Amino acid sequence: MDAREFKRFGYECIDWIADYLEHADRYPVLSRAAPGGIRGRLAEESPERGEPMEDILADFHDIVLPGITHWQHPRFFAYFPATTSGPSILGELLSAGLGVNAMLWQTSPAATELEETVMGWLAGLLGLPEGFKGVIQDTASTATLCALLCARERATDFGVNENGFLQGGGALRVYTSTEGHSSVAKGARIAGFGARNVVSVNVDGSYAMDPADLKRCIERDLAAGHRPCCVVATVGTTSSTAIDPLGMIGEVAGRHGLWFHVDAALAGSAAILPEKRWILDGVERADSFVFNPHKWLFTNFDCSAFFCRHPDILTSVFAIQPEYLRTDLDPQVVNFRDWGIQLGRRFRALKLWFVLRYYGRDGLRELLRAHIGLAEEFLTWVERNPDFELMAPVPLNTVCFRFNPEGSSLSEERLEELNGNLMNEVNASGRIFITHTKLGGRFCLRMSIGQLRTTKRDVAEAWEILEKSTVVQGWKG
Amino acid sequence: MDAREFKRFGYECIDWIADYLEHADRYPVLSRAAPGGIRGRLAEESPERGEPMEDILADFHDIVLPGITHWQHPRFFAYFPATTSGPSILGELLSAGLGVNAMLWQTSPAATELEETVMGWLAGLLGLPEGFKGVIQDTASTATLCALLCARERATDFGVNENGFLQGGGALRVYTSTEGHSSVAKGARIAGFGARNVVSVNVDGSYAMDPADLKRCIERDLAAGHRPCCVVATVGTTSSTAIDPLGMIGEVAGRHGLWFHVDAALAGSAAILPEKRWILDGVERADSFVFNPHKWLFTNFDCSAFFCRHPDILTSVFAIQPEYLRTDLDPQVVNFRDWGIQLGRRFRALKLWFVLRYYGRDGLRELLRAHIGLAEEFLTWVERNPDFELMAPVPLNTVCFRFNPEGSSLSEERLEELNGNLMNEVNASGRIFITHTKLGGRFCLRMSIGQLRTTKRDVAEAWEILEKSTVVQGWKG
Repeated sequence: MDAREFKRFGYECIDWIADYLEHADRYPVLSRAAPGGIRGRLAEESPERGEPMEDILADFHDIVLPGITHWQHPRFFAYFPATTSGPSILGELLSAGLGVNAMLWQTSPAATELEETVMGWLAGLLGLPEGFKGVIQDTASTATLCALLCARERATDFGVNENGFLQGGGALRVYTSTEGHSSVAKGARIAGFGARNVVSVNVDGSYAMDPADLKRCIERDLAAGHRPCCVVATVGTTSSTAIDPLGMIGEVAGRHGLWFHVDAALAGSAAILPEKRWILDGVERADSFVFNPHKWLFTNFDCSAFFCRHPDILTSVFAIQPEYLRTDLDPQVVNFRDWGIQLGRRFRALKLWFVLRYYGRDGLRELLRAHIGLAEEFLTWVERNPDFELMAPVPLNTVCFRFNPEGSSLSEERLEELNGNLMNEVNASGRIFITHTKLGGRFCLRMSIGQLRTTKRDVAEAWEILEKSTVVQGWKG
Repeated sequence: MDAREFKRFGYECIDWIADYLEHADRYPVLSRAAPGGIRGRLAEESPERGEPMEDILADFHDIVLPGITHWQHPRFFAYFPATTSGPSILGELLSAGLGVNAMLWQTSPAATELEETVMGWLAGLLGLPEGFKGVIQDTASTATLCALLCARERATDFGVNENGFLQGGGALRVYTSTEGHSSVAKGARIAGFGARNVVSVNVDGSYAMDPADLKRCIERDLAAGHRPCCVVATVGTTSSTAIDPLGMIGEVAGRHGLWFHVDAALAGSAAILPEKRWILDGVERADSFVFNPHKWLFTNFDCSAFFCRHPDILTSVFAIQPEYLRTDLDPQVVNFRDWGIQLGRRFRALKLWFVLRYYGRDGLRELLRAHIGLAEEFLTWVERNPDFELMAPVPLNTVCFRFNPEGSSLSEERLEELNGNLMNEVNASGRIFITHTKLGGRFCLRMSIGQLRTTKRDVAEAWEILEKSTVVQGWKG
């Protein structure tokens, strides 16, 4: 593809994205494709001869777009926000054009040094204590797995890395709350702890980890001959953004020599707000910490910020030194290949640098404050309607609620059915997309607010659609 | 950033990339930045107020670019090719604009179904046997780790996932050749096998795994009470693109019930050429297979194609089912979150679809044939010059060689010093970038050819620079 052709179609793609981001609400939020519907329209084999870019882009519009669930839609309230933004897309574009691999310092010094710099910026923005060194990972799943591996190796004097799991000795145990993310159990399986050695610590009424129960779990395990190894606290649980009390958890972890990892994948971004910085109180006791700028900091996926207080342990866990990767400068530079699982690494720092500079601290704070304000407003609407029930506190951007008609004494099964129907109906409208969870075994709907272009009108529209649904109206009528 | 501003800077970035890809040879291939040189020019803290995009892009040019090592330079002959291409960049751009997460079918049906489709296309292009199901991973490191985890779980009846490593029983052993990639040992550490349970199998004179030695290693381990678990064969070793004999290795693996994984990260692409398809002879015995379109198939990083013959095992290893990710359609659809380590997943299929369609089978074959032809030509120049020595066979695109003046009886130490100096000198010229390895303990230079825009003139220039270096000329003078 020569420069002329690249420019022609490049402009076309830029124009399309510019229009898309301003008018994503033209599309149904949740794709209406049926299983197999997209696949059935695609060729079964790759073409023998090259095809014109016109035809490929036409198929992008005709075949791919109807199968897209629009995460950039201002009324995408499902799962978690994953907002891209203009400066982030431009950073990703330039990074794709450069096509460098950020595995070694030598393979692009700017990629490594910009990564060191922006991770320092983030540490400053969040008010992380001195000593946390940052590296960009793809996802919090990976970052949490890295933390578990550090914990495992510190606990066994690097014995598993070298010898494999030791014969004899108690099982290494990992603690997280009943509301902790599925990546903890998954990581524990991958790293060889085993799912049964992930201990679920009780939560309090706000769905935050109960440090007293953590203490009890550890003491019970010690008495049983197990080896407590790692605790993963969550700042902003996936279901309800509950905030685990880091200070008290850290104290327990410290007393027993556990690696203390903090998973703040979604909510960490909120710590850039002085009035919300309390969510990280106690992080100074943590050994490692992760949050995802690709969730709620307007940086497109993937970009997960992992901080570790013991980079020496991290690099001991992951260091490799094949001859073909050695460089004369190795003793003087950081080679990020030794800071994680993958050898090859994308140049992700560029887009993050663009975002942090384009918006500035002020601009980012303003956006996050607006989202939190919208969640607080939505919360008041839920509270004012006696047919709806608030299911959890709302410290940040996520409201858990359900339809539960006043005076009804419906069974949990019936409420789950009703709310499931309600969710499916409003999602089928194409006007909003929300998802569900369970809290304390009770089915809830989730309203997760954090899209760059979401306004009060969008949130109000969501509430109106819910209130006017046939499920809600039918109950009354 | 509104549509107008996005378009303005979007066009500017497109223009820059168009020019960059056609004229990357204006830059020194290897960055001349000194350690800390880039970082020292960057602000220590993120700005309080947002900055104009003009300023940010100006700093991209002034500060970042001098710290880039140019992987897209036509005389980048280091490590491995990682060529981006016009259609791939456009696919990445649109994917960044859409900003969807491909974790579940529901979170964008088109992302999942396009991924199933293009992976089917790749299986057809490479002539993989029926039954291999594909999923896109970030890197071959991750894919190989997935294979090791499948091996571990199949060998222990999913016991490690559930219970952690069992107390008692012999150590699980992993086999790869002395030329196998560092990701095998790294993955074995992460998965809890332990570095010492990775057995290095001898290679033959062409640096390919010796199946007879594999058999001996397994028998020795069985006699010692170990449990042989997995063998990783390499199609195209990193040092010299040696091709392990898959058929014979698969036979040994099958006899002993080992998981048989094939790492064809770089070289797998060459199997699209009928005359090179022999490199995969025997792959029908493999349990899993990986190759990287982001290396030598003009798709920008990251895009690693992982195929597994037992998707049921793969998904059993990785499946998670938290309430907040359940959908009504789960029984009918593929949710790729259960096919790997990470929960969140980029929409990588789009760029691969663009590349496979834009170039077509014919176009891709033509490009790869040209690269292999250039390597064969370079090889003849090495062979004709009595001061140089060819260090390994050249089945594909990589030539291993060294300066070894005729008639000299230099020690290995002296040859390493000479060739290290030669490499540093030619790399410092900025005109080419080559890297080194060791084969059989002997220091070699590597010429790895596979950049989209590399021509015969570029390869000839590399040879001329080597021949005219002061190291070579000084020896004569």
